[in-house]
Amino acid sequence: MARNALGRELPDTWNGRRVVPYQDPYTLRPAGDRATRPLRRVNRGDRKLVATLQEAIERAGPRDGMTVSTHHHLRNGDDVINHLVRVLENIGVRDVTLASSSIHPVHAEIIEAIRNGTITRLECGVNGLIGELASRGELRCPITVRSHGGRARSVITGEVPVDVAVIAAPCCDEQGNMNGMFGPSAFGSMGYAFTDALHARTVIAVTDHLVPYPAAPVSIPESLVDWVVPVQRLGDPAKIVSTTTRVTTDPVGLQIARYAAQVIEASGRLRDGFSMQTGSGGISLAVAENVRDLMRRGKVKGSFGCGGITGFFVDMLEEGLFRALFDVQCFDLRAVESMRKNRHHLEISADTYANPFNAGAVVNQLDCVILGATEVDVDFNVNVNTESNGYLLHNTGGHSDTAAGAALAIIVAPSVRGRLPIVKDRVTTITTPGETVDVVVTERGIAVNDRHPELRAELLRRRAPVKDIRELQRDIYAVTGTPRALEFEDEVVALIEYRDGSIIDAVRRIQG
Amino acid sequence: MARNALGRELPDTWNGRRVVPYQDPYTLRPAGDRATRPLRRVNRGDRKLVATLQEAIERAGPRDGMTVSTHHHLRNGDDVINHLVRVLENIGVRDVTLASSSIHPVHAEIIEAIRNGTITRLECGVNGLIGELASRGELRCPITVRSHGGRARSVITGEVPVDVAVIAAPCCDEQGNMNGMFGPSAFGSMGYAFTDALHARTVIAVTDHLVPYPAAPVSIPESLVDWVVPVQRLGDPAKIVSTTTRVTTDPVGLQIARYAAQVIEASGRLRDGFSMQTGSGGISLAVAENVRDLMRRGKVKGSFGCGGITGFFVDMLEEGLFRALFDVQCFDLRAVESMRKNRHHLEISADTYANPFNAGAVVNQLDCVILGATEVDVDFNVNVNTESNGYLLHNTGGHSDTAAGAALAIIVAPSVRGRLPIVKDRVTTITTPGETVDVVVTERGIAVNDRHPELRAELLRRRAPVKDIRELQRDIYAVTGTPRALEFEDEVVALIEYRDGSIIDAVRRIQG
Repeated sequence: MARNALGRELPDTWNGRRVVPYQDPYTLRPAGDRATRPLRRVNRGDRKLVATLQEAIERAGPRDGMTVSTHHHLRNGDDVINHLVRVLENIGVRDVTLASSSIHPVHAEIIEAIRNGTITRLECGVNGLIGELASRGELRCPITVRSHGGRARSVITGEVPVDVAVIAAPCCDEQGNMNGMFGPSAFGSMGYAFTDALHARTVIAVTDHLVPYPAAPVSIPESLVDWVVPVQRLGDPAKIVSTTTRVTTDPVGLQIARYAAQVIEASGRLRDGFSMQTGSGGISLAVAENVRDLMRRGKVKGSFGCGGITGFFVDMLEEGLFRALFDVQCFDLRAVESMRKNRHHLEISADTYANPFNAGAVVNQLDCVILGATEVDVDFNVNVNTESNGYLLHNTGGHSDTAAGAALAIIVAPSVRGRLPIVKDRVTTITTPGETVDVVVTERGIAVNDRHPELRAELLRRRAPVKDIRELQRDIYAVTGTPRALEFEDEVVALIEYRDGSIIDAVRRIQG
Repeated sequence: MARNALGRELPDTWNGRRVVPYQDPYTLRPAGDRATRPLRRVNRGDRKLVATLQEAIERAGPRDGMTVSTHHHLRNGDDVINHLVRVLENIGVRDVTLASSSIHPVHAEIIEAIRNGTITRLECGVNGLIGELASRGELRCPITVRSHGGRARSVITGEVPVDVAVIAAPCCDEQGNMNGMFGPSAFGSMGYAFTDALHARTVIAVTDHLVPYPAAPVSIPESLVDWVVPVQRLGDPAKIVSTTTRVTTDPVGLQIARYAAQVIEASGRLRDGFSMQTGSGGISLAVAENVRDLMRRGKVKGSFGCGGITGFFVDMLEEGLFRALFDVQCFDLRAVESMRKNRHHLEISADTYANPFNAGAVVNQLDCVILGATEVDVDFNVNVNTESNGYLLHNTGGHSDTAAGAALAIIVAPSVRGRLPIVKDRVTTITTPGETVDVVVTERGIAVNDRHPELRAELLRRRAPVKDIRELQRDIYAVTGTPRALEFEDEVVALIEYRDGSIIDAVRRIQG
């Protein structure tokens, strides 16, 4: 056992992996070269189209212990991962590592494949039941949770060497040119798939919308795609992208959003060239709305919005409040539509978005990011991975990436959720280190990290409800009482990998 | 000495390189993985902007024997290569290999750097004086001539390991996001630069149009760019892209174009889904014009045009005769303008365009390519590299790539040029093997490769002036007389590398 710089106890090795304890957000440097993939030769007339995914995997050379990657743009509407896992079971390979960019509740089907030994490792965060079962010690399947940038890094450094990438392609031709903008399963940006296309030993495109050559525009080109598999459907379009994302109407949420906008204004960053990322949650969108109004009023010409993109940001682009959008995933249909037609709506890879180990990522240019939290602690560490019951239920997303990159990382959250306080002495799990979190905004007050005395002073001058984070905690505890600590076994069921590959926390089996 | 499959005498080794003799166009297969580049870490606030190219090169770690790459989209208007070479001289590095995608007459300035030992190897074809001097034995600088696809392959396989890529970026931000579509030196597609950005150990962007972050659209992203250097100008805009490309008015050229269109029509390929590449020369454009008229008349809906793109192809795209254009370089301003606004005008890398050693290149999907020639021989081998005086004066371009990929490779050329016959017993230099050339069209007749008896028969049925290639040769010799053979020394001054890395011919020093 060792402790990392945040005091979290970690095993020295874990399921054959040497654990590098987290030190700090910025200094760990990579050695060596980017991973790569084998050279191929394809001549005129060579065909890539194969009838079934099983045939494509068989051509790739399936073997026990192989690593298969997928991406999560189809979200909870995805049929591809379940299909893939059935194929792997059918082929009879064992001990497969699944390296998706995320796993959703719809993938609970693969629990059976974990139980029967087909899948025995998840190199990806999980949303939903799989994480719960892992937390209860009911699955023998080590899970490594990564941020979006960290996941790209892990593929690019070769930490996760991908044998076969299975890429869901909403619009694809027989040679494998593809985009995510058209077809019945259109999801927009293919952001998470680019890294896999560049680094997997074999790349398989799966499509339910095979179009005459060439598919256009081309997001991933034929020169990277080995096999093309037509399928009935990639997923349930109704669950792939939501048709609308809505600003909250909850008064608590609206209050938080107003405070957050006040923080941004007070930071002095709301000037020409301003850039921002928010999520698709109701509070985040309410913050965006407030910021938009401030930009209009101040005639601020922003530079870019980034992240998962919503129609709200598309409106801001079209209104001229941003000059560009960097889009690693579309959150709604309006974003998909905008990507089709607006050349300033830029599709980017997760590598370009947030990988700390490249020549420079977009997150480093962010003025401000609005992020959620399950819990925050008095050192500003944030948990978004485990819930109050200690279950691993959520993936990291771009949380720790954008917090590290942005000049101003603002956590917005109601002070009380499910009768539990948002601010605690110690978060159950650290997703994002407090060193990268600048402000915590709740409806009961605003806590500013000590690294920003000038921002704190400016907020006080503006009569904003600034509180020391311990004071904020006390005020919340006064309502909720002191929460009972969760009890864990020693057994580590998942590692929370920081974006640089060091381990920021371990998720342990829940006691009982 | 060895002979390759086309009977060309080659050294076994040449300037430290083992020579693999050309065997055939399709069977040589690569081993190993794609080349890669070092991992980096860039944090918020790290700056990439440096004041001078010298500073950028110094940060990259200059050393004797290093390889520096550039691309040739600025063509004969380019200031960057001359600037770069002056910087290398200034720094005092020796024995540098210059791996451009092409060298133009404007780069004659670097002859001095070759003479003084700064540059001692050219991993690129040359247009103009440098080739002439090499042919006369007046430069000590081995030259390896490659096709566009072969050049991409050489960088991707690591055959040419690039230490520093210097990328001319017409529109670029401080983080290195760039495109070629905007700015005073706009040249459109950055096709040849992509491979270098992915595989060089250090990537330097040089720009005369530094724009606020982010440059949009993004052709090469910041995540691949290490340093950004602002300069006064990248080149002379008047010479970067021609403002117009013109259909020939020469009656001989028009006759050739009519015959070529007849061949395409007779081939049966001029149906829905038809695809085509032509160059920007006057005869090529005249062929395109004829084909366009045939498509209009037959209501043919083509699939794509590719290659270097002209306004003529843009018109065909806009008219709906093609659904997409694959653009590796823009030949005129209309193409640049189209790329800015039309999402079916697709910017592609030289890798995707023509590299034989990837998962599939666009050239493999071509129905038809129209190509020029300096000489053709009775085995349909084509020379575009050396002139009738034996001087190495031209780069290969996409010649051998498209010939190998297209179903129908048509050579168009006047039967007599400078009083010399176009068809000879033996071309001075083989650029493109006859096995990949299907038809030779001159104003004196059409020769069809024996591999296409059905096409020959169909052309005869249509009363086209089909001749056996030896008969065509005789008819031409009747006008020109039998040309005198050139006399060469044994000394090899350049290798003509076939697209797969084997050597298809050697260029020898001219006698006298």
